[in-house]
Amino acid sequence: MTVDVGSGESGRRIYVIGIGAGDPDHLTLQAAKAIGRADVFFLLDKGEVKESMIELRRTVLKSYGKPSRRIAEGRDPDRDRTPADYEGTIADWRHRRSEVTEALIREHLLEGETGAFLVWGDPSLYDSTIAILDEILERGDTRFDYEVVPGISSVSALAAKHHIGVNRVGQPFQVTTGRRLAEQWPDQVDDVIVMLDAGQTFGKVDAENVDIYWGAYIGTPDELLISGPLAEVADEIRRVRAEAREKHGWIMDTYLLRRNS
Amino acid sequence: MTVDVGSGESGRRIYVIGIGAGDPDHLTLQAAKAIGRADVFFLLDKGEVKESMIELRRTVLKSYGKPSRRIAEGRDPDRDRTPADYEGTIADWRHRRSEVTEALIREHLLEGETGAFLVWGDPSLYDSTIAILDEILERGDTRFDYEVVPGISSVSALAAKHHIGVNRVGQPFQVTTGRRLAEQWPDQVDDVIVMLDAGQTFGKVDAENVDIYWGAYIGTPDELLISGPLAEVADEIRRVRAEAREKHGWIMDTYLLRRNS
Repeated sequence: MTVDVGSGESGRRIYVIGIGAGDPDHLTLQAAKAIGRADVFFLLDKGEVKESMIELRRTVLKSYGKPSRRIAEGRDPDRDRTPADYEGTIADWRHRRSEVTEALIREHLLEGETGAFLVWGDPSLYDSTIAILDEILERGDTRFDYEVVPGISSVSALAAKHHIGVNRVGQPFQVTTGRRLAEQWPDQVDDVIVMLDAGQTFGKVDAENVDIYWGAYIGTPDELLISGPLAEVADEIRRVRAEAREKHGWIMDTYLLRRNS
Repeated sequence: MTVDVGSGESGRRIYVIGIGAGDPDHLTLQAAKAIGRADVFFLLDKGEVKESMIELRRTVLKSYGKPSRRIAEGRDPDRDRTPADYEGTIADWRHRRSEVTEALIREHLLEGETGAFLVWGDPSLYDSTIAILDEILERGDTRFDYEVVPGISSVSALAAKHHIGVNRVGQPFQVTTGRRLAEQWPDQVDDVIVMLDAGQTFGKVDAENVDIYWGAYIGTPDELLISGPLAEVADEIRRVRAEAREKHGWIMDTYLLRRNS
């Protein structure tokens, strides 16, 4: 599969742009250039999009967007946050989201124009924009070419701030969710990165011989970093996390659990 | 742990800079700024550093380095490529490498100066620079502060080019090596990213219901991308890979294996 932007019959093209994990300087040159080429930016704001994300978006648009850029805003469909059937619920939510997105594209992106979605972190990591565009293209009613611009993920940013590799020599690592980790520590891996964890699942694993490298609001002025033996720092992380959440009204955190044999 | 560059008693500082997966436009603004601040660039060339990597380094130094920048080159220690004890051999090689690196820093990085290592991809992913600097600091003879600048990894670049997420909704994924995959498909995960695979291990797994997303020289003008059901495209990948390796004299490839239930 090759990505040949601009060759589509419709003449519409779309960039899915990773803008990094919070620091405006995480932006790549490729992302800055793509932002500079876009005529329309599509925003689907979830309730959870918080002030610092909006601020980051504003900063990069102001710095690299062309003056004539337009903003097309859609209302993101609501979503059950505690569903019995997680994957089914997400699939249904994605479907409704793809319909909202398709309507936005049809209404706001003219023939020959370039649109863009700005994605927090890296578009390939726990983000739904690519799947939503594919769903629209599969339905076949709206045509466009799209290109994905990779971004600095919160995983890379976390590791950089803690001065660690995510893997150890010749070893695998796993990236998983709080939901999965709550079920069990994955087999055969000693290095586990946890994303999308609203439940502080690190408190539920066997802490023996496990180090944690935790970070929140990484790359922003509010950044918090704590590391150490899980048994010793878990309480501190819980306390700091609760205080920060109270202060900012939201939190986005990521961590690596490293088990030593 | 916080990273407070410049506060060290020695007054020496070092950047470990991820420069992305091959495309000069993968460079982040943070990386470009760090390159612009460095007085000395440390190069430890392995035999395997090939022309396109050298070219990328040359391009970013020319574009963002300060005119007075210096280059300090060291001879990378040789390493047994087919060791009986893989991890022990790597540890020994790292140790020798840290001695060469320490000598370079002591000789070339003056008090108050800033040095830099340019790392292919992201420094947190299967790269030894961070571990080597930590080993030097642990010995205690040479002091400096260092900061890691995250980069676009070959994993993010591969996924972007193939228009895929590395995870599926709510699912974990694993990053591993060819060596590990040759032993077995990891338990409990259906999405596996393989790095450092010189042995085309994709040919050794059970191909039933598995899709592969393969890429080589990602982000460079020589980029190759092949995807499809593993059973159907494995031979094509082997053929294209062998031809490219013959043509360029080396190959660096990465792939995602996605098992469908």
